[in-house]
Parts: sequence; structure tokens; C-alpha cells
Amino acid sequence: MKFCSECAHPVSLITPPDDTRERFVCTNCGTIHYQNPKMVIGSIPLWEQDGEVQVLLCRRAIEPRRGYWTLPAGFMENEESTSDAAARETEEEAGARIEIRQLFSLINVPHVHQVHMFYLATLLDLDYAAGVESLEVRLFRESEIPWDDISFPTITHTLKFLFEDLEKLRSGKGDFELHTKDLKRHFREPIPT
Amino acid sequence: MKFCSECAHPVSLITPPDDTRERFVCTNCGTIHYQNPKMVIGSIPLWEQDGEVQVLLCRRAIEPRRGYWTLPAGFMENEESTSDAAARETEEEAGARIEIRQLFSLINVPHVHQVHMFYLATLLDLDYAAGVESLEVRLFRESEIPWDDISFPTITHTLKFLFEDLEKLRSGKGDFELHTKDLKRHFREPIPT
Repeated sequence: MKFCSECAHPVSLITPPDDTRERFVCTNCGTIHYQNPKMVIGSIPLWEQDGEVQVLLCRRAIEPRRGYWTLPAGFMENEESTSDAAARETEEEAGARIEIRQLFSLINVPHVHQVHMFYLATLLDLDYAAGVESLEVRLFRESEIPWDDISFPTITHTLKFLFEDLEKLRSGKGDFELHTKDLKRHFREPIPT
Repeated sequence: MKFCSECAHPVSLITPPDDTRERFVCTNCGTIHYQNPKMVIGSIPLWEQDGEVQVLLCRRAIEPRRGYWTLPAGFMENEESTSDAAARETEEEAGARIEIRQLFSLINVPHVHQVHMFYLATLLDLDYAAGVESLEVRLFRESEIPWDDISFPTITHTLKFLFEDLEKLRSGKGDFELHTKDLKRHFREPIPT
């Protein structure tokens, strides 16, 4: 940020009175330009048949991580709820209709100022189709997940949590639960800003 | 937003190619200025003695809703996690040290572009003190909660969920769980923007 979005005057990086952090402040009109983390919201679309669970993944058609597999997800928009965002992104990227279930993972990625959240979801039909941001969309059994070609660590963690909980469910030792995690800046692959 | 924060040129409200929503776009330097919801994060600091649970509330020293009672909470900052934010706001507003427990409520307030989240927490000592944004800070038993003087609907809902879950715990019928809710724009009191 270089200029005030209200009056076009250059901004200064200073700590306002009664604050503890540096902010971009306009010394002309007085506006303080706060910058806060963004939410990336997605779904985990599940299709169950004959007792076997499959999950819908999208292969990214856009950078960063073009060609890698992801759960449908994207930045939450103003005027929508977190579950609205999950359903919208699933429709846009995977052309898929889902029934949203509970919030399943909340993963902090503080070094890129993001919080990623994924909702468990039931895929309502098999008429899915790649949207403009996806090269292809398909269902995966656990044994078929392309672990080396997953787009981002938050997707890998969420899929691992999913299959751990599914195993607990199968063996009668537990149920789906909310998984929370804070990621640090030391991944095999950098997370884009 | 009136001017580009990168080049000071006036922005235009248009739908960019490959997008479905209007954005503030700079036709000079090409920057698209996305605007996304913000997270308000807080804690529910609990103090248990002789089997009785009390919760720490702060009376607001600042507008909006000056003089009304709230859980310690505020906007999440860049470079921190959601639980970091809950602990920081509790220290700043209530001068209190807590141990963060699980995420307890996630409430969407889409008409003001906010998501409010509250963590259950254990108050570690009784050396709390009002910070600059609080007039006073004190512990409340359930029977003492000033329901008519609570600052915002998300606080009221979170406190009601808390006492419902505490009653379930006492009667052996359940445990704390994550509560999610989407608020609409028809409250007794307006939510500030």
C-alpha cells in the first residue's frame, strides 16, 4: 500500500495513538488502513457407495500450483457466510452440488495472513464438471489420492484428517471431529502469498 | 474505496474478466482491489471454583456499544493464528492470562462482512484488570449475566451456548461442542459496520 484509497495522499507506516502496531495511516485525511487475515473456505465433497467413501478433487488450471490437485476452495466473499462460500467454490471449481455438513478443519497459515477452513459435505449427484479454474475433476478412493501432487499443505492435512476419522468411524472408535492446526513457514513447497 | 492504493489513480467498480463480481479495479496499473470478510476473535475465560463456573466479561469503554458487556474479542491481526488472537485480545481488554481450549462458536455476520469466533479458555489467575478499551472487568455466575446489557448478538448467542453446554455437562448428557450460526440483519440493536 502506497496511497490512501480515500484521498490519494501517500500513506505513512506509523503506530496510531492507542494502538500497538504499525498501520498504513493517511496523514492528510486521517484514515487508518487496517490489514487483516483472509479466509480461504472449501469443502470436502464425499460420495459413498457400497460402504466405500470417495472424495472429489480438482486439478488446478491456474497458478499458483497449476496442475496440482486440490479440494474446491477459495477466498470468502463479502455478504456470504462461511458455508455459503464452501458451496459456491464447490459449484464454481467442480461444477458440483453439495449438502454442507459440519466444519471439519480450521488451519492457520499466519505467514501468508490466511485461515483455511473446510466443511464436510455430501456430493448430491455425479454431474460434476471442471470449472474455468480446474483442468479436471474426479473422485478418489483413499488408495488413489495423489499425495505427491497435492497443491497446498492445508489440503494434505485436511485429507489426512479425513481418512483418519473415516478409519475411526469404520472401527467404531470415534466420529468426525473438528481438526485445528497452525502451520509454520517450513514446507517442502512454498505457500503463495 | 476511491483511489488505487498502489498508484493513486481513481478506481472503477467493474467485473474483471473471468470473475463474477464487481471489484474496485485500477484502469491505470491494473490492480484488482479485493475486499473480503474480517475475523473477530475472542475468548470465553472460565473460572471454576467449588464446582461453580464463572465467566469473565468486560464492559466496553469505546464505541460502538460503550458501557455494554462483552467477551474479550477483536479483529484478528496479520501474522497471528486464531488462538493467538483470542489470547492477545483477552490480555489487552481484560488484562487476563488464559489457557486456550477448543473453538466453541463460529457465527457469521454476513451483512457487516464479519465472522466471529470464540474459544473456550481457562482463566489462569484472578489478577485481571480493565485495559484501555474496558471500563471494568468482572466474573459472572450464570444468574448474574446482564442479558439486557450485552454488547452484540454474537456475544449473547455464545453465552447462551455456553450455559446450555454447561447444563448438559452437569446432567451427564453431553460435552462442549462447536456451535455455528448465521445471523441475519434483523436485531433489536444494529450491529456496527
